[in-house]
Amino acid sequence: MNYKIIVQYDGTRYEGWQKQGNTDNTIQGKLEEVLGKMYGQEVEVHGAGRTDAGVHALGQTANFHLPDDWVKDEWKGNTKEILAYLNRYLPEDIGVIAIEVVPERFHSRLNAKQKVYRYRISTNEIPNVFERKYIYPLNKKLDVGLMKEAGGRLSGTWDYKSFCSNKKTKKSMVRTLDKIKFEQKDGELWITFIGNGFLYNMVRILTGTLIEVGQGKRDPESMRAILDGKDRQLAGVTAPARGLSLIEVSY
Amino acid sequence: MNYKIIVQYDGTRYEGWQKQGNTDNTIQGKLEEVLGKMYGQEVEVHGAGRTDAGVHALGQTANFHLPDDWVKDEWKGNTKEILAYLNRYLPEDIGVIAIEVVPERFHSRLNAKQKVYRYRISTNEIPNVFERKYIYPLNKKLDVGLMKEAGGRLSGTWDYKSFCSNKKTKKSMVRTLDKIKFEQKDGELWITFIGNGFLYNMVRILTGTLIEVGQGKRDPESMRAILDGKDRQLAGVTAPARGLSLIEVSY
Repeated sequence: MNYKIIVQYDGTRYEGWQKQGNTDNTIQGKLEEVLGKMYGQEVEVHGAGRTDAGVHALGQTANFHLPDDWVKDEWKGNTKEILAYLNRYLPEDIGVIAIEVVPERFHSRLNAKQKVYRYRISTNEIPNVFERKYIYPLNKKLDVGLMKEAGGRLSGTWDYKSFCSNKKTKKSMVRTLDKIKFEQKDGELWITFIGNGFLYNMVRILTGTLIEVGQGKRDPESMRAILDGKDRQLAGVTAPARGLSLIEVSY
Repeated sequence: MNYKIIVQYDGTRYEGWQKQGNTDNTIQGKLEEVLGKMYGQEVEVHGAGRTDAGVHALGQTANFHLPDDWVKDEWKGNTKEILAYLNRYLPEDIGVIAIEVVPERFHSRLNAKQKVYRYRISTNEIPNVFERKYIYPLNKKLDVGLMKEAGGRLSGTWDYKSFCSNKKTKKSMVRTLDKIKFEQKDGELWITFIGNGFLYNMVRILTGTLIEVGQGKRDPESMRAILDGKDRQLAGVTAPARGLSLIEVSY
């Protein structure tokens, strides 16, 4: 059986989604640890988005396989029991909010059609104490009109090499960014990125660049030259991980 | 000048509101530290509710005095500048969301007319990862009908000695609890307590007792005997601090 799960996490204290050698201080590592304990053997978990260290998720999607005839005591592979087991043994900052059986060939990353990421920035000096770990405390006003203009120029289908921290890969860096949405709420700016796939650090570099536009340090018109230059040095800083969350993956 | 402030805090890592001798790991201590640094001399901060260690606040109210002629550089005692200074130097888990100048005789605790506390309990197995620190993870269903009945019997004007952890005081333990409200939202039960004043641990002992009613361990009818007995041993356990928040103080 192939199980699809929706995972939420506060990424603050983790080294990101993806397992790294021996360290298990990753979301994938924690999930595999608990599933392995439940099943009695190693279970591999595939995630839709490899979120960076410190990045959060409201709707990370993952899948894992267990043999059809696997029966844990009286559970009979009952999805409700698996969900309860996971939440009982996962740390408090990781939670599984849904589980379902999907076709055997389903792969959460390879089959993903669209992903939604959101970046939250505080734009005033009144702190949000309770959600502080999910907000980048810039605490300064931004010119959102200029940012929207730049966002429009950054959307579309482009080679986003300038917005990727990984220099080594020889794979295509062409992606389609359907939309960059801006919402102002209660002293915060939410920037939502909707696209078919994202490069390493791409959302954070796009955000850092957009913040520089909002501060008047860059013109919206200069976005095209950054894309055309295909050089990481041309884009803005990588915005801090804490403000970023993976919101949804659709198939 | 007498300044009234509204303070929010995540109380998780603090030893409560009230300063305790030399330790400054309290909300009051942190506020006095920053105000003292700003003013150059000791400033005493009066809080409306002495929240316990680990208890949070969305609307704690406090006040402090500064001389009328106090001028910090170009500020001229500007409330906006004081608010910004506080938020700049306070730890991220304490925030001041409002400030105003009030009459010299105003005292945030002595003049408080009504206080609202809320206790949040998780009643299902789907965790709330992002607000976990403000919720007691009971993770079990409760019979809210029975709890409402018990809540009705616990409201009113009573000697709440059975619901107080402090045995030493000889002061009156008569208080008026205007209302205990129950709301079910998304796998959570919110119990809201509205009253003119609360004894040490009173909301947490009321909550612990109500949970025992909701689990069928106590009858709603037995509430009156607990009140009449005036004995802490008759009431239920003290519910964990993490689920409790001071919501509002009115004058």
